[in-house]
Amino acid sequence: MKLNRLGEFGLIENIRRRTPVGRDVRIGIGDDAASVKNRGDSSLITADLLIEGSHFDLRWTSLRDLGHKALAVNLSDIAAMGGIPDYVILSLGIPAHFDSEDIDAFYRGFEELAAECCVALVGGDTNAAEKLIISVCVIGHSSAKPVQRRGAKAGDDIYVTGTLGDSALGLKLLRRDRRNSTRKGHPAVTLLARHHRPTPRLAAGAQLAKKKLATAMIDVSDGLLQDLGHICRASAIGALIEAARLPLSPAYRALAGKEGCGDALSGGEDYELLFCARRQNRTQIEKLSIRAQVAITRIGACVPADRGIVVLDPSGKAVPMRIQGHDHFKKARLSV
Amino acid sequence: MKLNRLGEFGLIENIRRRTPVGRDVRIGIGDDAASVKNRGDSSLITADLLIEGSHFDLRWTSLRDLGHKALAVNLSDIAAMGGIPDYVILSLGIPAHFDSEDIDAFYRGFEELAAECCVALVGGDTNAAEKLIISVCVIGHSSAKPVQRRGAKAGDDIYVTGTLGDSALGLKLLRRDRRNSTRKGHPAVTLLARHHRPTPRLAAGAQLAKKKLATAMIDVSDGLLQDLGHICRASAIGALIEAARLPLSPAYRALAGKEGCGDALSGGEDYELLFCARRQNRTQIEKLSIRAQVAITRIGACVPADRGIVVLDPSGKAVPMRIQGHDHFKKARLSV
Repeated sequence: MKLNRLGEFGLIENIRRRTPVGRDVRIGIGDDAASVKNRGDSSLITADLLIEGSHFDLRWTSLRDLGHKALAVNLSDIAAMGGIPDYVILSLGIPAHFDSEDIDAFYRGFEELAAECCVALVGGDTNAAEKLIISVCVIGHSSAKPVQRRGAKAGDDIYVTGTLGDSALGLKLLRRDRRNSTRKGHPAVTLLARHHRPTPRLAAGAQLAKKKLATAMIDVSDGLLQDLGHICRASAIGALIEAARLPLSPAYRALAGKEGCGDALSGGEDYELLFCARRQNRTQIEKLSIRAQVAITRIGACVPADRGIVVLDPSGKAVPMRIQGHDHFKKARLSV
Repeated sequence: MKLNRLGEFGLIENIRRRTPVGRDVRIGIGDDAASVKNRGDSSLITADLLIEGSHFDLRWTSLRDLGHKALAVNLSDIAAMGGIPDYVILSLGIPAHFDSEDIDAFYRGFEELAAECCVALVGGDTNAAEKLIISVCVIGHSSAKPVQRRGAKAGDDIYVTGTLGDSALGLKLLRRDRRNSTRKGHPAVTLLARHHRPTPRLAAGAQLAKKKLATAMIDVSDGLLQDLGHICRASAIGALIEAARLPLSPAYRALAGKEGCGDALSGGEDYELLFCARRQNRTQIEKLSIRAQVAITRIGACVPADRGIVVLDPSGKAVPMRIQGHDHFKKARLSV
């Protein structure tokens, strides 16, 4: 059904009906504000605004994947603080040519991940817009002191969860040769799945915070080097990254070709956790990796701030880095 | 300075510097998520998405006013639950032609109201966009049971704070004759101030909740009749409104002409509180009006659901109403 027949209130009612009100959601969708139970004495809050043409392209992103991703990138921010997500607010600007099946597909992707991560959709706003706009705000809590970007010291190890570069390389291949890279069985399909449906590393983040193992943490959204730069600035340290240690997926290795580890270093949208930890905790980190069911790889070490960020290339040559990555204004107008 | 020279991180740093971290904000702008102290055992959460061309027009809205309004409409939702706002998240999609002075003006308007209402800006997201997009999420608490839309009973009185219709009539005059309606001393200027800088009725809302005087409440954003319709549906009641009782400002009376109370009934964007209360509490409501320093006017009564919503015109003639007001999808594509 076209949205202008269903109407805003019909749409809200549709969303409300499929969103159960749980024990901790005292007032859910359909009033002026939601009322939710607080867990613990403080809350974590994060928000992301995703705009069609700038953050996603509906020519190659399904609405169901987009629903997943819009929530995942926010959950990833909560994971990066070592937090546990509880509630989510979703506001949409919807183009007139959308119909209610489109919105259903989006909500299905969104809700599947919400259910998996025990996050309750409690409210939001719906509007007409020329392009799809997705605004998500997640509220969570932390059972321990949240892990900030500051706190790392020279001598700490640097770790990353999962693998790096899959998302950026997948997107690059898709743009270059859409038909081939989406062909069943092609390794690019694995990379693209990582681009479209990133996994927020909630278990690893929460356990790192609870056990006080991470001295500083961030999620890799703008590219490893740029996000490492945020930790370095906030912690007043430098960093030495060993390129040979970067965790690369088999698909990435098969397809990266002469681009090597470029996308792993600065590709962006990995949504893996990048964190620092004291050297004496290496065994504990290994154990945590097994418990959280995600690979955790030591990729370098924190050094004094005056050394900046240096990447040791596979031959052992030190390459000082000018931090690159994603800046929403500096990159000449992006794709908008 | 142009934003593409300042860059996203320069902009975030500018915002961070002018946003003090208070006692209750443990981690503010500049990390993956904010960490804030919870007040009470539950939180109120509300969000609004404002899109250029649909919700505002920069030809006649200053960025400073827009900053005020973007926050005010969210605070109004918290007021409508009888809550107290604490924290705000602000995400912006910013057109490339904006410069940092534009954004400064917006933040100035936003922060002035935030300071006045003791609300702390704790985070958000900034992006490039073709048109200005403003996404606000406010988190608050309630010192009493939040007042919902349901809860009113036939026989209850119906009240509204402040005056109705100013905002819609002001906008109409502005569109009709911009030069004249913005001329200093012209009564339309008073109306337009109400359109551009609505006042969230926080004190009245919180006191109505605390004293358990409101049986149901909503803020008038889509027009009195439409928002009354929400209360009627949620409370399973009908309503009888006496047009002669509608609170109209002197400027409205001077300028409404033959349109009479049309804009007061269904104009929208008043951001006044519409609520129901037991008849025996009339004296208490009067006292509360003085304490909260806002006019509160009794405009009708709740009746059984099967009577629907009826407006008694000034001559005493009953006019059954088809609820009109704002629907973001049904109004043929709005102004987008």
